[in-house]
Parts: sequence; C-alpha cells; structure tokens
Amino acid sequence: MRERLRAVVYGVGEMNSIATRLMLEKGVDIVGAVARSAEKVGRDLGDVAGLDRELGVTVESDARRVLETRSADIAVVAVSSYMTDMVDHLKLCAECGVNAVTIAEEALYAWGTSPMAAAELDRVAKDTGVTISGTGQQDVYWLNIVSLVMGTAHRIDAVTGRATWNVDDYGPEVARDQRVGATVEELESWLASANRPPTFGRNTLDALAADVGLTVTGVSTTTRVEVAETDMQCRSLDLVVPAGRVIGFTDIDTLETAQGPRLTFEMTGRVYGAGETDVNDWKVSGEPDLLLSNPDVPTRMTTVTQLVNRIPDVINARPGYVTVEKLPKLRYRAFPLAWYVDQ
Amino acid sequence: MRERLRAVVYGVGEMNSIATRLMLEKGVDIVGAVARSAEKVGRDLGDVAGLDRELGVTVESDARRVLETRSADIAVVAVSSYMTDMVDHLKLCAECGVNAVTIAEEALYAWGTSPMAAAELDRVAKDTGVTISGTGQQDVYWLNIVSLVMGTAHRIDAVTGRATWNVDDYGPEVARDQRVGATVEELESWLASANRPPTFGRNTLDALAADVGLTVTGVSTTTRVEVAETDMQCRSLDLVVPAGRVIGFTDIDTLETAQGPRLTFEMTGRVYGAGETDVNDWKVSGEPDLLLSNPDVPTRMTTVTQLVNRIPDVINARPGYVTVEKLPKLRYRAFPLAWYVDQ
Repeated sequence: MRERLRAVVYGVGEMNSIATRLMLEKGVDIVGAVARSAEKVGRDLGDVAGLDRELGVTVESDARRVLETRSADIAVVAVSSYMTDMVDHLKLCAECGVNAVTIAEEALYAWGTSPMAAAELDRVAKDTGVTISGTGQQDVYWLNIVSLVMGTAHRIDAVTGRATWNVDDYGPEVARDQRVGATVEELESWLASANRPPTFGRNTLDALAADVGLTVTGVSTTTRVEVAETDMQCRSLDLVVPAGRVIGFTDIDTLETAQGPRLTFEMTGRVYGAGETDVNDWKVSGEPDLLLSNPDVPTRMTTVTQLVNRIPDVINARPGYVTVEKLPKLRYRAFPLAWYVDQ
Repeated sequence: MRERLRAVVYGVGEMNSIATRLMLEKGVDIVGAVARSAEKVGRDLGDVAGLDRELGVTVESDARRVLETRSADIAVVAVSSYMTDMVDHLKLCAECGVNAVTIAEEALYAWGTSPMAAAELDRVAKDTGVTISGTGQQDVYWLNIVSLVMGTAHRIDAVTGRATWNVDDYGPEVARDQRVGATVEELESWLASANRPPTFGRNTLDALAADVGLTVTGVSTTTRVEVAETDMQCRSLDLVVPAGRVIGFTDIDTLETAQGPRLTFEMTGRVYGAGETDVNDWKVSGEPDLLLSNPDVPTRMTTVTQLVNRIPDVINARPGYVTVEKLPKLRYRAFPLAWYVDQ
C-alpha cells in the first residue's frame, strides 16, 4: 500500500487554498503550486493559501515546468469555469503525464457543450495514460443524489431541478453580469445578441442523461427575465432596483430523451427579497412522484471536499477524459487518500 | 441482448402484489408464484395481486417445486422481516439455483446481527452460483444517499439518523407491540425481559460502515420510552392515552468505529400529535456539518420500486450473499429489465 500521494496545486485561489489544507490533512504531499498573478508567484504556498505555516512549496508561474519535474500523481486544477479556457490547462496536465481533477463547471460533462475540446482532451489523456475528470458541487448534489432518487422511480415522465443563488453574495461584477437594474427591454436586447457560454445546468443534465443511459434527442436553453415586483435593494451595487426593473434572470435548460423522460434545470441568479434563501430542489414526476431538497448545503466547502475526495477515483480510473458519472460512488475518506489508490 | 427475464413471485402480499405489476410493465415474465395461505393458493396471481386481469399463473404452496421447475432468473421474495424466518426461504432459492432479491429488512445487511445465517446463505449461494441480496427503502434513502452525503465531508465525527413512524398507520396489533397505553414501569419491565429481534437501524448502520470501509469496534442498542405529555388519541386502538402513559418507544442503535466516526440511528414508533408527520433526517457532524432530509418519501411504493429496479444488479452480481453496498449504484430502468443484464 502506498503511504503518500504527490499533488500539484494548479491555481491558488479561494477553492484551491482550502483544497491545499484538506489534502495535507489527508496525507498528500504538495509537490508544486502554479499561479499566474504576480502577487502570488514566488511566495510560499502556505502563505498564499492563508495557512498558518510555510509549506516549503514556492508558487510558480511555469505550469509545464512544474508538471514535468515533480512526478505528481495528480494536478488539482481550479482556474476557470469553461472549456474554452480549461482545455489548454487540462491538456497540459495530460501532455505531462499527470492525472488531473478540476472544479471547472463545464468539465463535469463537456461532451455535449464542447465536444471537440472533450474529444481532444480524451485523446491526449489516452495517449499518455492519465485520467482527466471534472467534479464539484454538482457531482453529488445535482447528479449522483438525483440519479439515486430517480433509481427509486418505476416510471419517469420528467425530472425538474431548481436552484437559486443570491446576486448579492458574489459582488458587484456578478450583479452587473446578471443585468441587475436594467430595463426588461435592455435585458432582452442583450440576451438576443450576447454570445453566452454554456450553462452549468446543461452540463449537469447531460451527465444525468449519460448516467441513466438516456439518449438525448433535443436540447434547448431559454432565459426568463426576473423582474422586481416592488422596489428591491441590491446590496452589492448599492442600488434600489425600482419595481418593474430587472433583478436577474433564470436560465432554463431542457433535454428531451428518446426514452421519454424530459430533464429540466432552472437556475436563477437574482436579488433576493427579505428572508429568501437559496433553493436547491429536484422533482421527479412519474410513478411515484419524488421530491428531493437540500436547503442548507455549505456549497463552498462541499465543492472542495468533493474535489479532494475524488482524487483516488481519478487516479484509479481508466485513461482518458472520464466524466464523473463513470467514476465509482464518491465515498468518505477516513484514511489517507493514498490508501484508496489501487496498487 | 436478452429480451425477457423470468421471475418467481415468492410471497403474494401487498408489496409483491405491486412488484408483480411493476415487473410486468418492465418486460418480465412471471413464471411462478408462491404463497402459504389457503385463501391465496390455487388462485390466479393477477386475481390475488388485485390486477385487473388474469396472468395465467397459479399461486402455489410448494416453493421448492416452483423454484425447481420454472428456470427463473430471479425470485422476488417478500414474506418476512427477520433472518430467523428468511434464511430458509432464501437458502431454498439458492439450493434451487435461483437468484433472489428480498425486502426482508434484516437481509439488507445480516452479517452483524445474524452472522451464522448470513455465512450459511453465502456458502449455499456460492455453491450453486447464484446471488442473494436484500434491498428495500433503506437501500437508497438510509444507506446510499447517506453515504454519498458523507462523501462530501472532509472529516466526520458522527452520523446521526432519525426516523419516526406513526403507530396509527399500521393497525392495532402494531400499536400493541409498541406498548401504547402501558405504564412506563410496564414497558421497562417488558424491555428488560423481552427477547426482541434485531433493529433495522442496526442493519442499516452495519451496511453504512461496510460501505465506507469503517471498522466497527462497538455496538449498542438502547430503548427510550416515549411518554404522552398530554392526553393523546390512539386511533388504531380507539383509546385515549392519559398523560404520563406510554405512546411508543425509540430504538437507538450506535456503532463505534476504529476510524472515529460514531454512527447512530434513532427510530421512533409512537402515537403522533396533531400535525406531526414522519421524520427522516440525517446529520453528518464534522467538517463541514451536513444535513439531509427526505420528508415526503412515498415509502411503500419506493420500497417496491427498489426491489424491482435492483433485479438486474442482483442477477449480474458475483455469486453469494451480496449485500447492497457491494452492488452498483441503483439506476432508473428506462428499458425492459432484461436489457440491463450482462450477457
């Protein structure tokens, strides 16, 4: 049995700073750290990650050099959300023969939204014999738990997920991205012309269909404007949004399948009214009807725990771009992560 | 690819009557039915199961004869809860070379509570090359979902499950078994002398520990008396329970593990007050704290759907008494069940 794993921390932001601590506590040796910004490069990882001690690992900017020289078992990648950015980072890991796990949302299941990038990544990873996988909050809470509940249905007509997030939790830039304060006409005009990236709801539904063996026959994404019914306070913009103006919008992804079940995910980002909290509900309509609600998930933390707890599964998996529905059941890691790696 | 499976319905009560319909709708041929009571034997299964049509399958009393002569792929067994009764039924299936899946609660994971019966069953099943498994409501809702949520924890100190059921939902016999109306002294005296069967909470926790790879170092089961705080109406006994008298009790199972996490399950069966509903909560204490709540599970139906949807997994599994945490993720069956069977 191996005693230790060797990991490269690829991207040293908020999520990978937590991941660094969790990995150290699970017996992983951090053998390299990669970041881009000048304020991080050259400093000790423990310092940049806000740990109370130095780790003897310097944050470097040359990712290829780090990946080529450290004999890492895994790169833990948290730098961006979309495959347009991520494919180069993940391909680099593969080219250097290092397995990689990421919380890039599109990487959860990019076969539907970025099929060329997914295939390219799969090819390179197979060539070098490593595994690339995407995980994150969706892994358990939007994919595997939902699939398990679906497994207790006799007949499914529709699966509908609903999630909301509060624009005010993510700062003014995100509030502006959600068009808070715009008129309905302005938002509709922007929606008509914007070249928006794929929705994470779509990636989640694609993974769910693949997990259950459903054949996708149609895909649609629509957007519903969320309008203030009364004047509402947007904290992050320090703005009162008048009634009738935009407080955000809802992306609605729908997959039609050859076997019948329609899969829908509605994700709403908007200003909340007093007392409103995040919604995270799934409904399975059929025989019987089934409901699933996870109202209090500590999302930031469980995003990182899944990133770290998935490491042995990714190392153990067959080579290629292996999406999460093909990995084993995610399990609690009572032991050092190395103990879960096949010999 | 096989087009059809062949199943024997073993026990024709409420649960297997539903299972019969579900299997027919999933392309399973019912090739035999077994029951004990004189009022069922000799009648058509469709009639006994309350379907709207005859199935051309006569309910028979000689289980061995049915199992030996029908070339069944699976026996779907719903006759009793405990291994003291179940081991003979399940061994008979194994002796006749027929895979079996059952909702007998103790069979979910009998290695802890009935280790000799479990080992005997395992031996016979391995001899004849068939698989015996227990499933039911616990499979997804108390075991696999809980384990998935545990998989999103970094550190677990304790896992605590709480479930309640309403004595009035199950008729006067069950209400009497729960000692409704007794004095506290009478209940405590009975508890001290009663030779009670294992609790299903214990079986669930044993399966959970096995699933996560935790080593059980200590087991305890205690019982807490549930007392009426005010006068309460017990419908099933048509009785007003005076304040201070027993309205039921709670069995509390606790497993200590070598790796640290303490697993506890509290199952309460008692008279409900106005507005009370079934509780089905799990709490994972550690980093982070995690909550799981399934308040509205249609238990009778999801017990049977899991029994039926597990059939391909049981047929595909290696021979022996294979408990459910060793089976694949339970999945929705969009296709005839035969299509999920390995060729």
